[in-house]
Amino acid sequence: MAGKIEALIFDVFGTLVDWRTGVADRLKKEFANKDIEADSLAFADAWRGEYQPSMEPIRSGERAYVPLDILHLENLKIVLARFGIADQFTDDELRGLSHAWENLPAWPDTSVGLKRLKRHFLIAPCSNGSIALMSRLARFASLPWDAILGADIAKTYKPAAEVYLKSAAALGLEPRQVVMVAAHNDDLRAAAECGLATAFIPRPLEYGRQNSSDAEPARDWDFVARDVEDLAERLAARA
Amino acid sequence: MAGKIEALIFDVFGTLVDWRTGVADRLKKEFANKDIEADSLAFADAWRGEYQPSMEPIRSGERAYVPLDILHLENLKIVLARFGIADQFTDDELRGLSHAWENLPAWPDTSVGLKRLKRHFLIAPCSNGSIALMSRLARFASLPWDAILGADIAKTYKPAAEVYLKSAAALGLEPRQVVMVAAHNDDLRAAAECGLATAFIPRPLEYGRQNSSDAEPARDWDFVARDVEDLAERLAARA
Repeated sequence: MAGKIEALIFDVFGTLVDWRTGVADRLKKEFANKDIEADSLAFADAWRGEYQPSMEPIRSGERAYVPLDILHLENLKIVLARFGIADQFTDDELRGLSHAWENLPAWPDTSVGLKRLKRHFLIAPCSNGSIALMSRLARFASLPWDAILGADIAKTYKPAAEVYLKSAAALGLEPRQVVMVAAHNDDLRAAAECGLATAFIPRPLEYGRQNSSDAEPARDWDFVARDVEDLAERLAARA
Repeated sequence: MAGKIEALIFDVFGTLVDWRTGVADRLKKEFANKDIEADSLAFADAWRGEYQPSMEPIRSGERAYVPLDILHLENLKIVLARFGIADQFTDDELRGLSHAWENLPAWPDTSVGLKRLKRHFLIAPCSNGSIALMSRLARFASLPWDAILGADIAKTYKPAAEVYLKSAAALGLEPRQVVMVAAHNDDLRAAAECGLATAFIPRPLEYGRQNSSDAEPARDWDFVARDVEDLAERLAARA
């Protein structure tokens, strides 16, 4: 286990906010405005489905780093074409729609839990979202960050080791002084390999009713908590 | 003048916090503990005097970027030697003392003014201080930032153009959508050359009773305000 913990860094999409509901709600409105008949939840899932493949060329060094906002816009165009509705939107509308990821509802425990954790620890996102995206999402979802870390700091995407290592270094901390918090086992596996402490929070509703490989902690992570509030209580007991 | 303003980014040392009093108070305590007779204000001024020269090799590309925390520690050692008291501190004590810059009192209007500005705009430091330093200073001085920008984002030091340009870009904004706020005319001059809007706030007490080249705005900056609260009122009138 880690020594003295100084900071917690968080996965955001899925772990702290409900991207699927947030994105689908926005799409539903846009589709209704344009009399488009399309399943907004299926569209949200398809959009998110392009997320990992679009980051891969950047992780491998084949493509120079661009912030996630650019990938979201590119992926939106791919999925609109697949749904046969690419010609229904102007460029300005597409850019506006790609900002759906800035306005996502937090899970009910997130904001209260983060505020509690902030009393004792530095807290920051370690997300693949850019500083532009994360700072606006923080306002929308009341996430009281001390700083915005993650992909934009490292100029590559998780689970590349640099993202975890540079996020800890940006706070002037050793990896073992930092806990990575996520609802995704792969994210924690990569953080643990970099020497960070780990905390797992299950989010069974991230993909709606679908089963997920992340229903349970895949390992005996340093902390396993019900939600962010529960994590705050467990850590306060040690502080 | 700028079009629609979306964000304000701030110089911090001098503009938002009183580094001289904060650093001198900390030094005074350390000197008293060790029965060292030295003028803590003169020491604070000498320490700050090494600030610009120590960044110069990094701006010119002669030295790779290191965060300001490292320069503060190096400069502390230089000034301790000059005062003839270098042998009075252990390495751990030196590192602790170099963190004096994380605990500086805000000017009385700073925190209230930033909270008002945050209602309408994104706000972030654009300081030469690192994310590690700025995030801890924000907690100490109640600076409610949306993100931490500045030198650590650009990997060089103001007034290099990249610091202003990369800070605006990190928010996903054009330079003209961002106001640089500072008590130092040189900082605003560099920001204006990058296309940012500018706001001047006088801080006549930054160097105690000494006169400064920054007693008055050197140009007709986009905004000239008495303090941060006054700036918030002027901008709210336009919002």
